[in-house]
Amino acid sequence: MKRREFVGGIAVAAGLAGCAKPENDCSVGGGISTETFEWDCVTSWPPKFPGLGMAVENLAERVEQASAGRLKIKVYGGGELVPPFEVFDAVSRGVVEMGHDASYYHKGKVDAAQFFTAIPFGLNSMELNAWVHYGGGLELWRELYEPFNLVPFLCGNTAVQMGGWFNKEINDIDDFKGLKMRIPGFGGEVLRRAGGQPISLPASEIFTSLQTGAIDATEWVGPYNDVSFGLHKAARYYYYPGWQEPGPGLECIINKDAWNSLPADLQAIVEITCQSITTDMAAEYTNGNANSLQQILADPNIELRPFPDKVLQHLKAITAEVVAEIMAADPASKKIGKAFYEYLAKVAANSNISERAFLNTREK
Amino acid sequence: MKRREFVGGIAVAAGLAGCAKPENDCSVGGGISTETFEWDCVTSWPPKFPGLGMAVENLAERVEQASAGRLKIKVYGGGELVPPFEVFDAVSRGVVEMGHDASYYHKGKVDAAQFFTAIPFGLNSMELNAWVHYGGGLELWRELYEPFNLVPFLCGNTAVQMGGWFNKEINDIDDFKGLKMRIPGFGGEVLRRAGGQPISLPASEIFTSLQTGAIDATEWVGPYNDVSFGLHKAARYYYYPGWQEPGPGLECIINKDAWNSLPADLQAIVEITCQSITTDMAAEYTNGNANSLQQILADPNIELRPFPDKVLQHLKAITAEVVAEIMAADPASKKIGKAFYEYLAKVAANSNISERAFLNTREK
Repeated sequence: MKRREFVGGIAVAAGLAGCAKPENDCSVGGGISTETFEWDCVTSWPPKFPGLGMAVENLAERVEQASAGRLKIKVYGGGELVPPFEVFDAVSRGVVEMGHDASYYHKGKVDAAQFFTAIPFGLNSMELNAWVHYGGGLELWRELYEPFNLVPFLCGNTAVQMGGWFNKEINDIDDFKGLKMRIPGFGGEVLRRAGGQPISLPASEIFTSLQTGAIDATEWVGPYNDVSFGLHKAARYYYYPGWQEPGPGLECIINKDAWNSLPADLQAIVEITCQSITTDMAAEYTNGNANSLQQILADPNIELRPFPDKVLQHLKAITAEVVAEIMAADPASKKIGKAFYEYLAKVAANSNISERAFLNTREK
Repeated sequence: MKRREFVGGIAVAAGLAGCAKPENDCSVGGGISTETFEWDCVTSWPPKFPGLGMAVENLAERVEQASAGRLKIKVYGGGELVPPFEVFDAVSRGVVEMGHDASYYHKGKVDAAQFFTAIPFGLNSMELNAWVHYGGGLELWRELYEPFNLVPFLCGNTAVQMGGWFNKEINDIDDFKGLKMRIPGFGGEVLRRAGGQPISLPASEIFTSLQTGAIDATEWVGPYNDVSFGLHKAARYYYYPGWQEPGPGLECIINKDAWNSLPADLQAIVEITCQSITTDMAAEYTNGNANSLQQILADPNIELRPFPDKVLQHLKAITAEVVAEIMAADPASKKIGKAFYEYLAKVAANSNISERAFLNTREK
């Protein structure tokens, strides 16, 4: 694996620095660095996967256009250069300059990171954007990744994910007992404590496992990605709205040496483009979900139904238990978890009288 | 008013074109245009107004950073260069290169434009982003502004606006009879048909009019802007969630000749930055609303209450009447209105099982 020029490269700190090579000086109205960069970006997604994978392709394409080709980013799908869950380490060690993944994959390494993706019954996408960009979240995130030589950026959001596909109705918390469900991370831990069996499966095996009955249920993302995987055709199913991932934020992580090697205008282009991808990816999901839902609703074998309130209350109580344990385990999780829940309390009060009130009003 | 260099300026169409001046050629890895641009941007907002006004300041600052000073945008508050509601004409005629306002201000001139800001009971901010960026909305918008020599970009969103401050309870549709309320545009027309008196007032007069009883009610934006205007201190009030502006999108409009004069990298920077501002402004509002709501909730003189269902149903029926009239009045409104409502039907079905279901679930 080639080490790129950022290792020991020229750090141009000021935005209006001249060209890196004096013989090519083209300073006009302040000047601009013409140094070029070729970066590798590893991801946790199948290549060009709708939503998650396309967002990072769009990021690379936009940065190249906006920089007039001065910063070229080559995107690798999960496993093409490093395994999907080794993105964090690869970027941290400087094997590659950039990564695109979800911060909750770093559980076990840097547990507090999961607050920046999603917590069951936590912040939705609009609220997460507000916390990160205006509520102090980004500063906490940057501080958390500092020891890993990484600079994180919020870069995308899938919007609310669905609760999943079940081969039986969930009418009571006891219906989770013994249920074999593909559900990773925090949601999986909640299911386990509710008596279920969370199963880890690579994306490529979900459909077959569901179809053959090797698992009783699965969550994946939402209508857009679920239909593209054929999950709605795997059997006769109940499809439930989500509680476990209310608006997962994706991250773009950049090796700090690589970041510091960029002139200020390219840094600005990367930062602005990441924020544009947050709008763009949520828009891609919202549109894709709306289209795919039409197919789901037209299928007489699928029943869309809500979890009963008492089931949700039980899952929420278990979530509080798990959060308390996470926060007790290390100082960073305590600090960030406290900030997250203080923010959630005030921003949810606002969502209740704005987004929630409106969405309910529209259906009156 | 000075005509800027874009009039008759050099159009660099290809992204990887060389420097404009051959003697300064600094092509490295494809090259970059070093031509500089100074643009004026007129707006409909008080200068640096929280949210609306700051978003366009942020736009200008980001574009300058990302372009290493090659595109400088000077922002003018409403009335500083042209009156707040003459932004469209000023940019269309090329008096200035750029404007930031809301497309529903162009009612009477290009009625169909209002579908791209907000329609009562219509698309919220996430849904509007999806329609514009992935659902065909942007193409319709570009086509609509083509005869005006304007290129529109979605650039910001206030999120759901509040229904307003009232000096009496609204328990029945008859409570609107004779009600003098500051409420502009489409919402004002709905109020008028419900028996109320919509009043037009400059922002600077809202507080005093409410305090002196010259008006009985007002809507403005939401907690963030309302508290900064002191509306919560004007009298003893009822504060109601919104129905009339479910997620108004703001627009950045650019004179087409100015747009065509930019090299492709600067065009990319402008387009990407506008989309980043959509996330950023909604985040500023969500954060600001959450903070200001704390003050409102702590005030014993303010009662936050919902409109009764039957009142909302009545307002919705009137809205449908007004929309039908708008769509019948001209072919562009018919075409765009049809696209809007077809999109609303499918995207709202998705919001009901995702964002709405989650926000209700969180409160169980």
